[in-house]
Amino acid sequence: MVGHLSSADLAVIASLGEFEDLARDRMDPAGFDYVAGGSWGEVSLLESVQAWRRYRFRPRVLTGASKVDLQGRFLGRPAALPIAVAPMAFQVLAHPDAELATARAAAAAGVPFTMSTSSSVPLEAVAAAIPDARRWFQLYNVRDLDFTRSLVERAASAGYEALVVTVDLPVLGYRLRDRRSDFRTPRMANLPPAIDRPSERYGGLDRRSEFVLSWADLATLSSWSSLPVVLKGILTAEDALLAADAGAAAIVVSTHGGRQLDRSVATADVLEEIVAAVGGRIEVWADGGLRSGLDIVVALALGATGVLVGRPLYWALAAGGQAGVERALAILREELAVALPLLGASTIDAIERAHLR
Amino acid sequence: MVGHLSSADLAVIASLGEFEDLARDRMDPAGFDYVAGGSWGEVSLLESVQAWRRYRFRPRVLTGASKVDLQGRFLGRPAALPIAVAPMAFQVLAHPDAELATARAAAAAGVPFTMSTSSSVPLEAVAAAIPDARRWFQLYNVRDLDFTRSLVERAASAGYEALVVTVDLPVLGYRLRDRRSDFRTPRMANLPPAIDRPSERYGGLDRRSEFVLSWADLATLSSWSSLPVVLKGILTAEDALLAADAGAAAIVVSTHGGRQLDRSVATADVLEEIVAAVGGRIEVWADGGLRSGLDIVVALALGATGVLVGRPLYWALAAGGQAGVERALAILREELAVALPLLGASTIDAIERAHLR
Amino acid sequence: MVGHLSSADLAVIASLGEFEDLARDRMDPAGFDYVAGGSWGEVSLLESVQAWRRYRFRPRVLTGASKVDLQGRFLGRPAALPIAVAPMAFQVLAHPDAELATARAAAAAGVPFTMSTSSSVPLEAVAAAIPDARRWFQLYNVRDLDFTRSLVERAASAGYEALVVTVDLPVLGYRLRDRRSDFRTPRMANLPPAIDRPSERYGGLDRRSEFVLSWADLATLSSWSSLPVVLKGILTAEDALLAADAGAAAIVVSTHGGRQLDRSVATADVLEEIVAAVGGRIEVWADGGLRSGLDIVVALALGATGVLVGRPLYWALAAGGQAGVERALAILREELAVALPLLGASTIDAIERAHLR
Amino acid sequence: MVGHLSSADLAVIASLGEFEDLARDRMDPAGFDYVAGGSWGEVSLLESVQAWRRYRFRPRVLTGASKVDLQGRFLGRPAALPIAVAPMAFQVLAHPDAELATARAAAAAGVPFTMSTSSSVPLEAVAAAIPDARRWFQLYNVRDLDFTRSLVERAASAGYEALVVTVDLPVLGYRLRDRRSDFRTPRMANLPPAIDRPSERYGGLDRRSEFVLSWADLATLSSWSSLPVVLKGILTAEDALLAADAGAAAIVVSTHGGRQLDRSVATADVLEEIVAAVGGRIEVWADGGLRSGLDIVVALALGATGVLVGRPLYWALAAGGQAGVERALAILREELAVALPLLGASTIDAIERAHLR
Repeated sequence: MVGHLSSADLAVIASLGEFEDLARDRMDPAGFDYVAGGSWGEVSLLESVQAWRRYRFRPRVLTGASKVDLQGRFLGRPAALPIAVAPMAFQVLAHPDAELATARAAAAAGVPFTMSTSSSVPLEAVAAAIPDARRWFQLYNVRDLDFTRSLVERAASAGYEALVVTVDLPVLGYRLRDRRSDFRTPRMANLPPAIDRPSERYGGLDRRSEFVLSWADLATLSSWSSLPVVLKGILTAEDALLAADAGAAAIVVSTHGGRQLDRSVATADVLEEIVAAVGGRIEVWADGGLRSGLDIVVALALGATGVLVGRPLYWALAAGGQAGVERALAILREELAVALPLLGASTIDAIERAHLR
Repeated sequence: MVGHLSSADLAVIASLGEFEDLARDRMDPAGFDYVAGGSWGEVSLLESVQAWRRYRFRPRVLTGASKVDLQGRFLGRPAALPIAVAPMAFQVLAHPDAELATARAAAAAGVPFTMSTSSSVPLEAVAAAIPDARRWFQLYNVRDLDFTRSLVERAASAGYEALVVTVDLPVLGYRLRDRRSDFRTPRMANLPPAIDRPSERYGGLDRRSEFVLSWADLATLSSWSSLPVVLKGILTAEDALLAADAGAAAIVVSTHGGRQLDRSVATADVLEEIVAAVGGRIEVWADGGLRSGLDIVVALALGATGVLVGRPLYWALAAGGQAGVERALAILREELAVALPLLGASTIDAIERAHLR
Repeated sequence: MVGHLSSADLAVIASLGEFEDLARDRMDPAGFDYVAGGSWGEVSLLESVQAWRRYRFRPRVLTGASKVDLQGRFLGRPAALPIAVAPMAFQVLAHPDAELATARAAAAAGVPFTMSTSSSVPLEAVAAAIPDARRWFQLYNVRDLDFTRSLVERAASAGYEALVVTVDLPVLGYRLRDRRSDFRTPRMANLPPAIDRPSERYGGLDRRSEFVLSWADLATLSSWSSLPVVLKGILTAEDALLAADAGAAAIVVSTHGGRQLDRSVATADVLEEIVAAVGGRIEVWADGGLRSGLDIVVALALGATGVLVGRPLYWALAAGGQAGVERALAILREELAVALPLLGASTIDAIERAHLR
Repeated sequence: MVGHLSSADLAVIASLGEFEDLARDRMDPAGFDYVAGGSWGEVSLLESVQAWRRYRFRPRVLTGASKVDLQGRFLGRPAALPIAVAPMAFQVLAHPDAELATARAAAAAGVPFTMSTSSSVPLEAVAAAIPDARRWFQLYNVRDLDFTRSLVERAASAGYEALVVTVDLPVLGYRLRDRRSDFRTPRMANLPPAIDRPSERYGGLDRRSEFVLSWADLATLSSWSSLPVVLKGILTAEDALLAADAGAAAIVVSTHGGRQLDRSVATADVLEEIVAAVGGRIEVWADGGLRSGLDIVVALALGATGVLVGRPLYWALAAGGQAGVERALAILREELAVALPLLGASTIDAIERAHLR
């Protein structure tokens, strides 16, 4: 393992794809594989990236667009970019500063940060580190509903502005890499040791957080706080409509990084029909496989309100800590700043379906 | 050649694909090629596997499904899984215990075992080994109808509950590997030496078992016993309807492991239209290229009542004998146990066409 | 270069694809490239082979077909197989016996032989070698119409039963291999030295045989003899209809082995629409990329009356002379003998469009 | 780096693709990458080439076409071929004679030459070098409109017959190769040093030539001279119609060599719909990825009036100076001279949509 990159080293990185190899050199192999891997044959893992790249742009010329406004919007409020940091577990595997570094980078870039239930530092510590920045709390049903309720209440107290409820993990996906490496997950700092007991084989989530909630239970969960609820892990128009009916503020179209049901439809392949189905009733965010500003433009053109970016930021964290994540977000910002005028658009809202073939 | 795997070695195997290399190291090369190979350019051999993987899942969330019931059904009666062991010839090539080991593993897992006419132990011995377990007898027309009738009568006496009549082998496929290795098939234990005379070049089936039956002859064959008849090797809706009209209890959509007419349509590509054509009149089983629980879910979603798994179990037999086959079946069981809740389904019957894009 | 194969060596060859490497070892590199190569980027060369392989078979079962009759028909008369030997130039590049060996092998197998204008032995010598066998004469317009007329009259006198007029060579294709090797074609034995003057760069056909005929000129050419005229090199339904109107007895759908206009539509991709367009008025033969009995079954199912096989026989000639070509034809025969019962067909005529998906 | 090729060396080159490796050996790596590279992941760079190759020809026979007339037409006036030299910047990177060599080769071949604003020699010098040949001036909006107006006036004075206004460069594309090599562009000879100040990082065009023109501004630009205006960089039917409405004499369908918005639709994929949209009101030229005469035939069949060829000529310039570019154009001429009779066409105008499948 080699040291973290300096700011000068980071400055010459020009695309998010470069961070993965840098991270591999700086992480424990089993931890790297835990983050990098998907389930079964990792078809969804690969396809989530490729699916965005299948779209082709229809650039418009002489629209006068050269200075652009990249401001995005999540839950009806502005963000510096149409990007938020996706929830990612156990960031201590990447860097000792863990979620603190990632959260500070997000705050510096003006984009919302999603804190995972399975974090390596307590949710309160992240709140204290970025007191004025937008932050959301990702929720698993951990062990039982009583303890889960306590998590919700802590998140609300600590100023998290929304709950991102993960709905695609009733059981843990069948992950070959972790089974082969016999990977054990680290401590979950949000849980007391009595609940975060040493994980059994293949990581503890399969034991600790089986989420057997149904749509009916969701009402209970919502009643515990006044926080808006975002449902993460929707892949069908049917469930998107159920989410809107259930009062969700937004949904995240996601394959959970290709880590749950392999060979699921890719976000890029269902986003448009889901956006059409909800018809503007709630926000639709896109997650999974976004690796460049161009991918994000595709997602926006297909109707996403905004996007979540995950693994590339994890690799950036491993490569350079907070500065690494800042560099990664700066690259996405510049890519958008170049792509929009080339597309003939001056604002995020000006990106539309007709910009894609 | 190296020894068979211990149970501890087997326990770390996490996917069926791992067994093939283990088998190659433990089998005679010509015997391995006989089992592994297909006909002509082996297009169907490859495509039978790939075709399942082209489908994409539409997972449903918050259905409350986390505990699942994996019970399947064949010929109207339950099985522990929607899986049966496909007929496979000459299992002595894989392991000295041959069909006895495979049958015992099937019985232990609660799944039906199909005994091949071309087995390495007599059908009565397998019956004695798993007296209480479901077992079917696969039938070729061997040499002449009189001898074939004696096989049917023996199978009925020995408690086999159905005849699986192979209909896609009027002649042996054009198999390049066997021609090049000058492969000679081993003894067929169900046949007296006078009938199972030393095979001529390229294996004896082309001499011993040419199946010149027509639909009309099928009535004769059915009259020899009260066993239900399953027709294996149907690939068109037209023939599926003829099978239903002829009184078959079930059909097996199959390309015979890619060993007969190369470049035939893949099971995964015709299953749906065949299911639609028979309209529930008879059971439709899927065979060929199923290598994981996800493949099986696809087959079930396309309307198969159940599936047959062949080669992966052959490799598991070569790798670890009965324990190897048990491990392979346990992997399939676990994959299904994870896949169903991720799909939002609690039972095998709950898997439906809408779960596929 | 190594010696020709013995009959024992030939007997273990099981597929036509094996002959190419054997030929490469036995031919001058520039001569091999001349035969093996196509024009421009050789897209058509590759695609002509691949296009047949894209079709999938729909095998029918229990039709009772196991003994099959492989007899084909060309120009209304029977042949042992639905196969004829395609015209191929300069066979001396492959073997000193040149066209004599290929013609004798064709006669032995009962299939028609097409003699090229650009042959290495005179047309009369081939006629003398296979006096009782079916043979056709392939015609280029060489130098001028007067000399071309003399060729037609010689072919008629020597008992050739048809003229196969090549219509896709108004100029020679742009062939990179020959330009790089500075390949010079050998003597054309059918031409007196005064006409077959030493070829200029890239082979002489571009100088000697520019075919500037139009549909109107075809009537003149037909009037020189009573031989039926077959037009070789048709790729559109429009031209197929013009051919029928012009009195052709048959057309050959062909890309000239991928040697003329690269990126032309493949025979397998246009055969069906051409067959439909001519509506049975004339025979439609398929040429190009047929490498196994399965390819031939596809062509027949798409409506071809019969097929021409070229390069594989050239490689077989280089590998083993007459015995090599006989072995190649025997393989095709056996592949057909296996494929037909597996498809559920007893005769060539029983192969139909419904056998393909 | 090795020396330039002799005429004898050039004579054995048979396809444009051979020039790239020859150029790589003769150019500074960063300069080579600047020319060779595209933006982002270089998807458009690759696809621009591949898209032409997806089309298949439908050759017609016996049309009598063997002698062909290759004369093309641009802006209503004849050219020796339906080919013009695309604008390419900084040709000194390829050869010390820079644009002078390329222009002379174009003049010798009878094809129009497009002079870039970003040239390495002044526009007046090129005009003096090919006083009687057709030449166009490619225009960027450099620094400000006043200076840009001076460029237009100089071009008109120097006998350039048209302005080719680049409309797809409001900002410079996101080019990874140049960012990694920290490439600095050379002097722009058309600009006084005060305006052509040393470029900032990644080449100066992003600073010097941001083109913030809108459709309204185009009228101003047109008013500065009587030169017809050609708009280069149109990829949609909508913009093609706007161009016709704005009085453009022609449009160039182009992805700017894959250097601006990556993953844009390829010229070959939108050409037909753009031609249909403009309905003959203005000329439609095709640019991007044309690497052989066959590609050009595809573009013409899709309705292009003519084509621009760029990079292959740049590589030819690097390989052999003026003689290299002449050889490249001679290859294209010969490829067309062979392709047209093989297609059954005698003239450029005879190439039509029905020649493509």
